[in-house]
Amino acid sequence: MDKPKFEFWFEFASTYSYLSVFRIEEIAKKASITIEWKPFLLGPVFKDQGWNTSPFNIHEAKGKYMWRDIERLSQKYIIPFKKPAEFPRNGILAARITLAFEDETWVPEFIKKTFIANFAEDQEIADEEVIGSILLSLGLDAPGIMELAKVQENKDKLRAQTQLSADKGIFGAPTFVIGDEIFWGNDRLEDALLFYKKNYS
Amino acid sequence: MDKPKFEFWFEFASTYSYLSVFRIEEIAKKASITIEWKPFLLGPVFKDQGWNTSPFNIHEAKGKYMWRDIERLSQKYIIPFKKPAEFPRNGILAARITLAFEDETWVPEFIKKTFIANFAEDQEIADEEVIGSILLSLGLDAPGIMELAKVQENKDKLRAQTQLSADKGIFGAPTFVIGDEIFWGNDRLEDALLFYKKNYS
Repeated sequence: MDKPKFEFWFEFASTYSYLSVFRIEEIAKKASITIEWKPFLLGPVFKDQGWNTSPFNIHEAKGKYMWRDIERLSQKYIIPFKKPAEFPRNGILAARITLAFEDETWVPEFIKKTFIANFAEDQEIADEEVIGSILLSLGLDAPGIMELAKVQENKDKLRAQTQLSADKGIFGAPTFVIGDEIFWGNDRLEDALLFYKKNYS
Repeated sequence: MDKPKFEFWFEFASTYSYLSVFRIEEIAKKASITIEWKPFLLGPVFKDQGWNTSPFNIHEAKGKYMWRDIERLSQKYIIPFKKPAEFPRNGILAARITLAFEDETWVPEFIKKTFIANFAEDQEIADEEVIGSILLSLGLDAPGIMELAKVQENKDKLRAQTQLSADKGIFGAPTFVIGDEIFWGNDRLEDALLFYKKNYS
């Protein structure tokens, strides 16, 4: 068997993905592990369960707890956090851009800035102006990138990527995937990296 | 405000409660924190969501993941584990006993032995013979204890305790409660103890 990649499956709307987005690069670097950034959509996963929004909105006690948990954890990790006025925000545009340009070196920076916009600055990441200004801040051709992200071929690519997440047994975000082994949740980031290091480094 | 207790809310059927039951005493002792053992039932919580069993049985991918996660975590913590043939098992009798005798010093030992029976020895903890033999192994009057556990007053006490868990915002097990602050999941045990130590020690 080929050596598997260390895959980081995340969703732009997900609060716990935000925590991992901020933590993963530094910890992975220390462990000399290269991250594969894998954007996907949770919407279809929720729809399969008969939900039309995040379970945190459906289940009141769980939702209330989640916001308090994120508040405590962002303090623990020293990550900026401001509860967004809208939740979950539509991250399709950001996911399409990430996927269309996945081999570009600016992508991790784009991901982090987009998560900050959503979870630290309460900006509407579904808005092309918000995403456009993030791309501009990276010195990129914002309109050109957004146009390419929205071509049918790339829309299909994101749909296929989301289907692939389900095929791998992923049901939430973030999820760390190493071959057949999956680790769900920001709480499992360290265990997942340790598993990779132990078996493939 | 009085100094709050460190409450450990658990359900005998819950796999993640099992992990915390094994870990909590040693860690709490190191932190000089006294644990209040709080048995409750998840059945009513699930029923409120329209579920007639554990979500791990309803959601196939999540269930498959949970068993692998428990397997990995029990190895990490060096806790004996054998996937039970039945899940979730009915823990009402064990919860009633724990609650009826909550002030007795043998209770933590009874709790641990019952969790071992369920999750390391694949025994049916709803069975009075199984629970009876655990009580006997502790040198106790098994029939007398089980009889007292089943009086109406104690049945009502467990119902009230389960209602109280919902009033506190608890929606899963294990949950650690310190005044108004709740920490959900075996993954939060250390954070909860740290929070207690920081604020009330």
